[in-house]
Amino acid sequence: MDITKKRNILRYNGSSLIEQEDEIVLEYPLTIMLNGQEFATLICTPSDLEDMAIGFLASEGIIRFPDEIKSIHIDQTGGFAYIETTHPHPVAAEFYSKRFIGSCCGKSRQSFYFHNDVKTVKTVTSQLQVTVEQCLHLMESLQQQSADFKNTGGVHNAALCDKNSILIARTDIGRHNTLDKIYGYWIRNRIPLHDKLIVFSGRISSEVLLKVAKIGVGILLSKSAPTQLALDFAEDLGITTVGFIRQGKLNVYTHPERILDYHPNKIQA
Amino acid sequence: MDITKKRNILRYNGSSLIEQEDEIVLEYPLTIMLNGQEFATLICTPSDLEDMAIGFLASEGIIRFPDEIKSIHIDQTGGFAYIETTHPHPVAAEFYSKRFIGSCCGKSRQSFYFHNDVKTVKTVTSQLQVTVEQCLHLMESLQQQSADFKNTGGVHNAALCDKNSILIARTDIGRHNTLDKIYGYWIRNRIPLHDKLIVFSGRISSEVLLKVAKIGVGILLSKSAPTQLALDFAEDLGITTVGFIRQGKLNVYTHPERILDYHPNKIQA
Repeated sequence: MDITKKRNILRYNGSSLIEQEDEIVLEYPLTIMLNGQEFATLICTPSDLEDMAIGFLASEGIIRFPDEIKSIHIDQTGGFAYIETTHPHPVAAEFYSKRFIGSCCGKSRQSFYFHNDVKTVKTVTSQLQVTVEQCLHLMESLQQQSADFKNTGGVHNAALCDKNSILIARTDIGRHNTLDKIYGYWIRNRIPLHDKLIVFSGRISSEVLLKVAKIGVGILLSKSAPTQLALDFAEDLGITTVGFIRQGKLNVYTHPERILDYHPNKIQA
Repeated sequence: MDITKKRNILRYNGSSLIEQEDEIVLEYPLTIMLNGQEFATLICTPSDLEDMAIGFLASEGIIRFPDEIKSIHIDQTGGFAYIETTHPHPVAAEFYSKRFIGSCCGKSRQSFYFHNDVKTVKTVTSQLQVTVEQCLHLMESLQQQSADFKNTGGVHNAALCDKNSILIARTDIGRHNTLDKIYGYWIRNRIPLHDKLIVFSGRISSEVLLKVAKIGVGILLSKSAPTQLALDFAEDLGITTVGFIRQGKLNVYTHPERILDYHPNKIQA
């Protein structure tokens, strides 16, 4: 499916309004029908839909392994993903969006919003280390790859990388969908993650951070800003967060021990 | 409540990683308890919470007038908004996120995603007209006002304006929340909207466009890109959309008759 569409617009370039052709990003609803029941509707960019649906279900704690999916069928015209799992999903669907009010969990985990997060998020123990230069280079690679962003200005990008280069990159109008597309790819392909990191165009919200924790990657690089809660989660879950990677600069927010140019002694001196 | 918090980070400015204090935007869950039932959890910036809760309920079609709210109480520590309405809400809560599959509606309205949108969205008939200069000026005002954006890089801003200046501006980490905060303000204050427009920092998704239509404003100015579906809705609902307002430039996507510098004859010549 196309992910953009041409459209005539009026452009003002400083002097007058001129009619021009522009490329606009599509917005597509995909409703996930899980074992015959409506589970959720994702508003997305129509690419990698199977991966996105699988990644979303994994992120919600419904599946963990590809062989738990008995069948998956995408109805592109209607915007439906029909998925049958080998076992009925363990928690009633209406439970998934209920807020989780914890009182007996760890320090910051009691502030997880939703039940499924409590179940699926894991602490990351990756030993991977990268240099500042590698962080800058990976963000540059992401931006070079994302031609759609340049054309339409309306999408986010996420990529699974090793230290030196991008392995798979995914695009979507929804920040979370880019990560679900990567998660779904990983569920199906199970490549080792201990030496991988994620580079991301969007803001590091708690939801984004938790998705990275669910995937199980130890370093998250972002072009944008984090929220306080995302950083609390990152601290607690062992994830290195690097943000505002732009124009040769960056900020390291949590777990700087994975960033090789960080020398605690030097800074304290 | 504070909406940002100070935090020590490591900043790389081109030569070395230096420890510095930074200001990080807060992320706050507000669970709306409607007539004793959990209705939704909004992830937001903790400001204007009553307005946001009211705007959200209006946007979901639960209320239309302030006197339909019997009581509202915000528990800031716990993150709850307890709202009692004069009549029980007419549709079961679990229905609200169900996808709406239309077949008998208007051209583009059959692609509304959700039932509540079908019920609450209205066509806008505003006769307001503005110049390109006014559009550029209003976006500049929004950005000047949004000190939090400059400090943290992590929030969106929306403002209700007349042709020449901003009347109320609202900030949030969630794009939609900024509009709910404005909608809630309007529900309570009922200022005339025929001469008002909305200026917005975020992308024009269909959800953003539908919120503007629900509020009932005829012109939406954005710093960012639209999606194709948002533009289809805007065309159909009579809303002028202007995007990519930056560096003295802008794009007019729909209903250019409200933009005074637009002369169809001149362009065709």
